[in-house]
Amino acid sequence: MKIVVLSGGVGGARFVQGVVEVADPADVTVVGNVGDDLEVLGMCVSPDLDSILYALAGLNDERRGWGRAGETWNALESAAALHGETWFRLGDLDLGLHLVRTQALRSGEPLSAVTAGFVRALGLETGLLPATDDRLRTWITTPEGEFTFQDWFVARGHRDDVDALRFEGAETASAAPGVLEAIDAADLLLLAPSNPYVSLAPILAVQAIRDALEHRHVPCVAVSPLIGGRAVKGPADRMLSRLAGGTSPAHVASCYTGLIDSLVVDEADADALDGLDVRAIVTRTLMTGADARRRLAETALGVVPA
Amino acid sequence: MKIVVLSGGVGGARFVQGVVEVADPADVTVVGNVGDDLEVLGMCVSPDLDSILYALAGLNDERRGWGRAGETWNALESAAALHGETWFRLGDLDLGLHLVRTQALRSGEPLSAVTAGFVRALGLETGLLPATDDRLRTWITTPEGEFTFQDWFVARGHRDDVDALRFEGAETASAAPGVLEAIDAADLLLLAPSNPYVSLAPILAVQAIRDALEHRHVPCVAVSPLIGGRAVKGPADRMLSRLAGGTSPAHVASCYTGLIDSLVVDEADADALDGLDVRAIVTRTLMTGADARRRLAETALGVVPA
Repeated sequence: MKIVVLSGGVGGARFVQGVVEVADPADVTVVGNVGDDLEVLGMCVSPDLDSILYALAGLNDERRGWGRAGETWNALESAAALHGETWFRLGDLDLGLHLVRTQALRSGEPLSAVTAGFVRALGLETGLLPATDDRLRTWITTPEGEFTFQDWFVARGHRDDVDALRFEGAETASAAPGVLEAIDAADLLLLAPSNPYVSLAPILAVQAIRDALEHRHVPCVAVSPLIGGRAVKGPADRMLSRLAGGTSPAHVASCYTGLIDSLVVDEADADALDGLDVRAIVTRTLMTGADARRRLAETALGVVPA
Repeated sequence: MKIVVLSGGVGGARFVQGVVEVADPADVTVVGNVGDDLEVLGMCVSPDLDSILYALAGLNDERRGWGRAGETWNALESAAALHGETWFRLGDLDLGLHLVRTQALRSGEPLSAVTAGFVRALGLETGLLPATDDRLRTWITTPEGEFTFQDWFVARGHRDDVDALRFEGAETASAAPGVLEAIDAADLLLLAPSNPYVSLAPILAVQAIRDALEHRHVPCVAVSPLIGGRAVKGPADRMLSRLAGGTSPAHVASCYTGLIDSLVVDEADADALDGLDVRAIVTRTLMTGADARRRLAETALGVVPA
C-alpha cells in the first residue's frame, strides 16, 4: 500500500514516524511544508523538512520536541558574543545540515535534490519531498502588521492574532519533482495532525498539489491537530477560532473542503461532530510516545483494507 | 610607542600575544595575512586573522596550537554524516564566528570592518587589520601542479615541494583602510616569526604595504621562525632550502631585502650569521609559554629605547 503524507513540522513529524513504523517505510512518501523556510545567519533553514528528516532517522529530541537529540549550542553562543543574530535557535548538529544544504542550494542544486541526498546519506527508505523547489514563503497578517512566519512564530512568540495568511510565490510555484507522481501512485493520502493554516495550507497553496488532491481516486484522511477543541501545542486553536469561527471537527474539516474523505478526531471531540460533512474516525490522538503514535497511524491507515 | 606587527597565523599570533603583554595593547596594530583565506562549507574563513583574534582575546587553544579552547566538533560531524566537506576542521565555536563574518561579507561589508567589529565585540584594544579587503589568494606551484594554499597545506599535508608562489589579486590589491596609516604612525615595525613565503610574503605582495616598509623612517625588526635552521612547525625550513638555497639567518633575511633593519635569531643560530646584512639580535626564540613569548617580544621591542 503506497502512502503519501502531507506534513508540517514537529507534530506532523511524530505522526510520520508512526506511519513508517506501521507501514513499509519504502512505501511512504512525505511531502513537507516549506512556507516556514528562512535564512538565518546566512543559512538556508527548512525547519519542517528537517523535523521530518530527524524524526525518520531517529535523530530528533523527543523530550524537547524539536531539533536534534544530544544537541549543543556552541556555534550560536560564539556568534552571540560577536553580535550575530541568535533569535532563531540553531544547534551545532543542526548547523551541520544547514551548512551542507546552504552550500548545495547556493551552487544551484534544487531543494528536492538536496533533501533526497540527505535521505540517502542517512540510509532512509522513506521518500521526503519539499512541496516545491520554488520559493514559497508564509506571511502572517496581524493587527500589528504583516510578518514572515518565523518572525511571527519565533521572534514574536505567535502572540499576535492572525487576520490572514499569504503564501508568497505560491501562484507560480510548481510541485517539486516526484510530488504529483507520488500522489498519483498512492493508495492512501494522509494529512498529518499539523496546523491547517501555517503547516498544510502552504503545501495546498501549490495549485498542482491541490488539484491532485481534489481529483484523487483514493481516500484522503486528515488527522485533526486539536484535542477537545484545543491545540496540543502552538496557535492552531486560536487561529481556527478567529479564522474559521470555531475549533470543532467541522471547523477543522472546513480547512480541507473537497480534499478529504475522513477526519480522525480525538475521543474528547466525539460529542462535537455536528456539521462535519466527512466521515469521523474517533480515537485517541495524543502522541504521548511510540505506542500512541503507532496506534494513531494504524487508525488512519485502517481506512484502506490491508 | 606605537607598534605595527605583520603576522601570519599560529606562530605569529603567539608572538603578537607576547607583544600586547609587554606593550600597551592600544598602541599595537596587527596586520594579518589573508592569502590563506578560503571558502569551506560555504563559510568565508580567514584562518590567520582568526588565530590572531583568538590569541588576543585569550580564546585560543594553547595546547592544540590552533583553533579555540574548549572547542567541539558537532556541526562538522553532522555535516560529515550528510557527505559535506570535512577536510578543513571547523569547530563549533569557530563556526559561530564564520557564520557572522560570512553573513556580513555577503551583505557587502568589507573584511576590515567585519574584523574591527569582532575586535570591538571581544573588548580588545589592539587593532587587527587584514592586509587588504580585496581578494588575495596564495597559490603554490609544486611538481604535482598548482594548488591553493589550503589544498596544499591542509588537504595535501604540505608534502609537495614548493617551486614557486603566486599571490592572486596582489597586483591590484589595495592596503585595507588603516594599514598604511598605522605603518606611517608607528615607532617600530615588526615581522612576526611566521613563514616568510606563505604568511608574510602575501602581506608584502600588496605593493603599497611593501612601499611603506621600504620607505620607513623607523626600525623594522623581523623575528626568524627558524631555530638551528629548522622550523618549529610547518614547512618553512624546506621552503627556504629550496627557494632561498639554505636555512641560515642570512637566507631568512633574504626574504625581506630592503625591508628590515634587524633580525632576531635563536641562540642555536648564533654561529651561523655569515652573510647576514642586517643587525642580528640573538636570544632564545622558542615560545614555550607565556614567559618565553613575553621575553621574545621584549627583545624585539628593545631595539627602540622606551
